[in-house]
Amino acid sequence: MLNFDYSIPTKIFFGKNKIEVLPNEIKKYGSKVLLVYGGGSIKRSGLYDDIIKGLKENSIEFWELAGVEPNPRITTVRKGVEICRENKIELVLAVGGGSSIDCAKVVAGAYYYDGDAWEVVKNPGKIIKVLPVASVLTLAATGSEMDTFAVITNMDENEKLGTGNPDMAPKFSILDPTYTITVPKNQTAAGTADIMSHIFEAYFSSTKEAFLQDRMAEAMLKTCINYGKKAVDEPENYEARANLMWTSSLAINGLLSFGKDSNWVVHPMEHELSAYYDITHGVGLAILTPFWMKYILDDSTVDKFVEFGKNVWNISDDKDKYDIANTAINKTREFFNELGIPSRLSEVGIDESKLQEMAKKSVRYGKIGSLKPIDADDVFNIFKTAL
Amino acid sequence: MLNFDYSIPTKIFFGKNKIEVLPNEIKKYGSKVLLVYGGGSIKRSGLYDDIIKGLKENSIEFWELAGVEPNPRITTVRKGVEICRENKIELVLAVGGGSSIDCAKVVAGAYYYDGDAWEVVKNPGKIIKVLPVASVLTLAATGSEMDTFAVITNMDENEKLGTGNPDMAPKFSILDPTYTITVPKNQTAAGTADIMSHIFEAYFSSTKEAFLQDRMAEAMLKTCINYGKKAVDEPENYEARANLMWTSSLAINGLLSFGKDSNWVVHPMEHELSAYYDITHGVGLAILTPFWMKYILDDSTVDKFVEFGKNVWNISDDKDKYDIANTAINKTREFFNELGIPSRLSEVGIDESKLQEMAKKSVRYGKIGSLKPIDADDVFNIFKTAL
Repeated sequence: MLNFDYSIPTKIFFGKNKIEVLPNEIKKYGSKVLLVYGGGSIKRSGLYDDIIKGLKENSIEFWELAGVEPNPRITTVRKGVEICRENKIELVLAVGGGSSIDCAKVVAGAYYYDGDAWEVVKNPGKIIKVLPVASVLTLAATGSEMDTFAVITNMDENEKLGTGNPDMAPKFSILDPTYTITVPKNQTAAGTADIMSHIFEAYFSSTKEAFLQDRMAEAMLKTCINYGKKAVDEPENYEARANLMWTSSLAINGLLSFGKDSNWVVHPMEHELSAYYDITHGVGLAILTPFWMKYILDDSTVDKFVEFGKNVWNISDDKDKYDIANTAINKTREFFNELGIPSRLSEVGIDESKLQEMAKKSVRYGKIGSLKPIDADDVFNIFKTAL
Repeated sequence: MLNFDYSIPTKIFFGKNKIEVLPNEIKKYGSKVLLVYGGGSIKRSGLYDDIIKGLKENSIEFWELAGVEPNPRITTVRKGVEICRENKIELVLAVGGGSSIDCAKVVAGAYYYDGDAWEVVKNPGKIIKVLPVASVLTLAATGSEMDTFAVITNMDENEKLGTGNPDMAPKFSILDPTYTITVPKNQTAAGTADIMSHIFEAYFSSTKEAFLQDRMAEAMLKTCINYGKKAVDEPENYEARANLMWTSSLAINGLLSFGKDSNWVVHPMEHELSAYYDITHGVGLAILTPFWMKYILDDSTVDKFVEFGKNVWNISDDKDKYDIANTAINKTREFFNELGIPSRLSEVGIDESKLQEMAKKSVRYGKIGSLKPIDADDVFNIFKTAL
C-alpha cells in the first residue's frame, strides 16, 4: 500500500425526502444561489418546484443557469460565471447529474479567476479560490457529487478536459434515489457502466498489496452487477436505485484509489470519442473496456484478471489462468450488452477517419494506464479493434 | 437501505514518515497542546522523541497526560481536563491506541462542561462544545482515530460506558503502520478481533438490502482474515500492518453502518466483562462472538450466516444451510484461536459469580442486537455457555 492523504469532507444526505434539509444547508453559506441544471426533466418530475418552494419560503434569492449540455460546454460555464459575478452569488447549486455538477464546479472555480474560464480547465493550478458548491443528484453515474473533479468540453477546439481542486468538492450533496426512478433505461445503463469504469480505473493498478482497496472495489463491482440490470428492467426498484446511487459516490471519492498507483486509461480514451462525436460517456466506456482488457492481457497482467474473474464473476479457479481471464472479460462485455449497450464504436457512429488523431490526443500527457501503461499506437489499435 | 446522513470529516495522513505533517497540522488549531498517552512504549520506540522534537522546533508548547490505562479511567480524564483548563490548551493530541484517543476525546468533551467529567460520559447530551482532538495512532483496533465515540471506565462504579459527539471526531489522525510493528503478538491479535467485531456489529443487522454495505463489510473481514495471522507471525510485515490499520479506521467510521439498522450486541456484553474484570477488550469480544452467533442461529437468521459463510469463508453452497452457518461460526472461532486468543471466559479469570449482574447491566438501555435482539436472560445464557 502506498502512502496517501485522505480527506472526503462532502456531507451526504441520503434517502427519501432528504430534500427537506436543503434550505438550512444552503443558509450556512449564504442566501444568494445559482441553480445549475440541464433540460426539463427536473421540471417534469416536480423536483424543480420543490426546490424553488423551499428557497422562497426561506428567503433565499436564486438565479438560474439552465440547459447544461450532457457533455457540459465551456460556453455554458462562461455564462454561469457572469451571472455569479453580476449577482454576488454565494453558493452554486447543481441539480442534476454529473454534467450539471461539473458545470457548477467550474463556474465556482473560475469565479475568482480574472481570465477566461477555459484557462482553469486547461490548468487547474490557476484555481486559487472556489465558491461553495453543492448538489442535488438525479443520476447515478459520475460520482461528481462527492469528488473534486470536473470535465468540460470545448467544441471549438474538439477538447474535453478534466480539471480539479480540493475546494471543488461539494460542501453537501443530497442523494434521494427516488429522483433516479424516472431516468430512462439507456441512461441508467450508461450510468452503471460509468460507475464500473471508475472502479476499474482504480482496481487495475500496478500496486500489488492494496488488499483492502481491491476487495472494496470488488464489493462495488458486485453491487453494480447485482443491481444494474434490475434498475434497467424495474425502474422503480428502490433498492436497486439506492445501491447504485451510493456506489456511484463511493466508487470515485478516493476510497478505492487511496494507497494505490493511479493512472486512468479508459476514461482518457473515451474522452476523445465524446469530444469528437458527442456520444454518451458511459456508452463509450462500456464499448472500450473489454477491448482494452483483452489488449493488455498478457503474462504480466493475467493474475490481476484471474483475481477479477474469481472474486467478481465467481469463476471457479480450477481452470487455466487465461481461460479465467478471458471468461471474465467476456462476461464483462456480455453484462454491458445485457444492459442494452452496443459492443462496437461503429454502432454509435464512429468511423476510422479520426482514430489516429483521437489516439494521439488521449496520451497527450504521456502513457496512460497503471497496470500496463499504453501509448498512442496501443490506443489506436484498441480503437481499431473496437470499430 | 435506510436513510442516512454521511459526514466523515477526519483527515488521514497514512503511511511511512507521515509524522512530518504533525507540527503544521497542529498549528491550524493553535500552539498549546496536551499530549495524551499510555505507558512507555512510545518512548521506547522513539516516537515520543520525534514528536517532542517537532513541537519544539515549531514553538508549540505542550503539557502531558501520561499513564492512560488500557481501559481508560474517568480519574485520568479528570486530570486531563484540569491541565487543559489551567493552561488554556488548544488541541488535545492522543498518541497511542484507542485508550489514549478515547481519553483525549472525553477530556476535550468535558472541557467546556461545568460539572464532573463523568456526567458527559453518562449523558453525551451534556457535551455542548469540544476542544479540537487529533491522534497519532500506534495500534490497529478500536477505530477511535476516525470516529466520534469514546469508552470510559469508572472502576468505583464498575461502569464502562460509551459516549460520543460529532465534534469528538479527530480533526486529523496520523496512521503510520510502522508504529504497529512493535505491538506484541497478543495485542495484535486482540486488535484484529476488535476490528472484526466492529464489522460484525454492522454486518449482522436486520436491514435486508444494504447490499453495498454488506459486500464492503465482507471485504474488510477478508482483509482481517488475510492479514491477522500474518501480522502476529511476522510483526514486521508492512503490508499486513498497513491493511489492518486502514481497515481498523474504515470498519467503524460509519461506512458499514450508514443505511442500516444498528444496535450493537457483542460490544455491550463485553463492556461488562472488562468493567468488572479489566480484561483485554478484544479478547472478550473474540471469546463471546462465536457463542453469540450460535445462540442467535435459527430459521430467522440462518440466511445471513449462510451469506457470511459463503462470502467470507468461501464455504461452497452445495451444503445444507445450517451446515454452512455452523461451519462459518466454527471457522470464526478457529481463526481467533489461531491468533492465540483463548476460547472461554474461564481462561481469562471470569467465574460464575457476577454473570447475572453483568448480564443485567449489558441490557440496561433495552434489548441489544439488530439481527435478533436479545435480553438479559439471553446474555446470561451466552455468558454461561462461554464460561
